[in-house]
Amino acid sequence: MTTAAVREGEILAAAARLFREKGYHATSMQDLAEAMGMNRGSFYYYIRTKEDLLFRLMRQAIQAFIEAVTPIVEQPLDPREKLRRAIATHLRVLTGMMDAVAVFLHELKSLSPARQREIVALRDRYEACIRAILAEGAQAGVFRIESPKLAGFVVLAVMNWPYHWYSPDGELAPEELAGAFAHMLLRGFERRDGEEEGQ
Amino acid sequence: MTTAAVREGEILAAAARLFREKGYHATSMQDLAEAMGMNRGSFYYYIRTKEDLLFRLMRQAIQAFIEAVTPIVEQPLDPREKLRRAIATHLRVLTGMMDAVAVFLHELKSLSPARQREIVALRDRYEACIRAILAEGAQAGVFRIESPKLAGFVVLAVMNWPYHWYSPDGELAPEELAGAFAHMLLRGFERRDGEEEGQ
Repeated sequence: MTTAAVREGEILAAAARLFREKGYHATSMQDLAEAMGMNRGSFYYYIRTKEDLLFRLMRQAIQAFIEAVTPIVEQPLDPREKLRRAIATHLRVLTGMMDAVAVFLHELKSLSPARQREIVALRDRYEACIRAILAEGAQAGVFRIESPKLAGFVVLAVMNWPYHWYSPDGELAPEELAGAFAHMLLRGFERRDGEEEGQ
Repeated sequence: MTTAAVREGEILAAAARLFREKGYHATSMQDLAEAMGMNRGSFYYYIRTKEDLLFRLMRQAIQAFIEAVTPIVEQPLDPREKLRRAIATHLRVLTGMMDAVAVFLHELKSLSPARQREIVALRDRYEACIRAILAEGAQAGVFRIESPKLAGFVVLAVMNWPYHWYSPDGELAPEELAGAFAHMLLRGFERRDGEEEGQ
C-alpha cells in the first residue's frame, strides 16, 4: 500500500472508534483531529467534512466484505464449501474491523440521501453474493431452502451479530466462531436423505 | 392500564422514535417536548433528564421480552415447541416496538455505568431464558448442540436481526417470519435419527 493509503486506513480506523464510542453526532471535528494527532492543516487536507469521513469509512467497510467474499462465490466449489468459506471470510473481516461494522450498521441514517443510496447499493450487492450461494445450493439439490430471501437474512444475521458481543481479546478465535456457525447453518439448510430436491 | 401508564407508554414510544431517527445525543429536550406536544410544566413532570428517559425506555423494552417469553420456558412443553413459541413471541414483541429495540441495541453506551449494569443484567436474564430452552432440548436428547453458548447467539441473532430490515407495513407478517426462522433453526438443532444423544 502507498503511504497515503495507509494514512487513509489509520484515519478511518480512528474515526470508526470515535463514532462507535460517542456516536457520530456527538463526535466533533476537534475530537477527530485530537484522536488522529493531526494539526489543523493536515486534518482539513485529509477530511473535508465529518459526513465525508463517515461515508468513506462505510464504503471502505462494505467494500472489504465484497472484495473478500466475491471470489469465493465465483470458485468452482460445492455450495456447502462456498458457504463455509464465506462465513469464515466474513467473520475474519468483521472481527478485524468491529468499530467500522458497528458504525456501518448504526449510522446509515446520518448520511445524505444520495450517499445512503450508494452505500445501500453496495450492501445489496454483498447480500446478493450470499444469497447466490444459497440459490446455487438449492439449484444443485444440496440445500433445501423454502425462502431464499429469509434464509439469506438468517445467514447475514448469524454472521453479523458478533459485532454486538464478540471480543477479539476473548477466548474464541474468529475461525472457531465461523466453524460453529457454519455447522449449525449447514445442518439447517442441507437436504436430508429421503427429502425431495429443490426449494 | 391507568392513564399514567398509558401516558408513560406514549412518552417512551415518542422518545424511542426520535432517538432512533436522530440518535440519542443529537436529540434535544426541546425536540422531545415538541414531539410529545407537551408544555414545559408537564414535560419536566414526566421527564427529569434525557438519560432518565433513555433508561426507562430500555428497561421497558427488555422487560417486555422477559415478561412475554419467561412463561413459555416454564410451561410443560416439548423443547422444540418452546423454541417455536419463544421465537414467535420474540418477533411479535420486536415488531411491535422496532424503535425501542433499535435504541436498546445501539445506545447502551449512552447510559451511566450503573444503569448500563442494570440493563445488562436484565438482558442477561432474557438471554439465559433462551439458552435454558436449548439446554433443556439437549438434555432431553431432542437437540444436538455442540456449544450452547454459540447456539444461543445464533437464536438471538436470527430473532433480533429483523430490527435492521423488517417493515411492519411490508408483505411479511411477524408470524410468517417466526415460522420460517423456527423451521430453519430447528432443522439445525434437532438430533437426527442415528445420531448419538447429548451435546
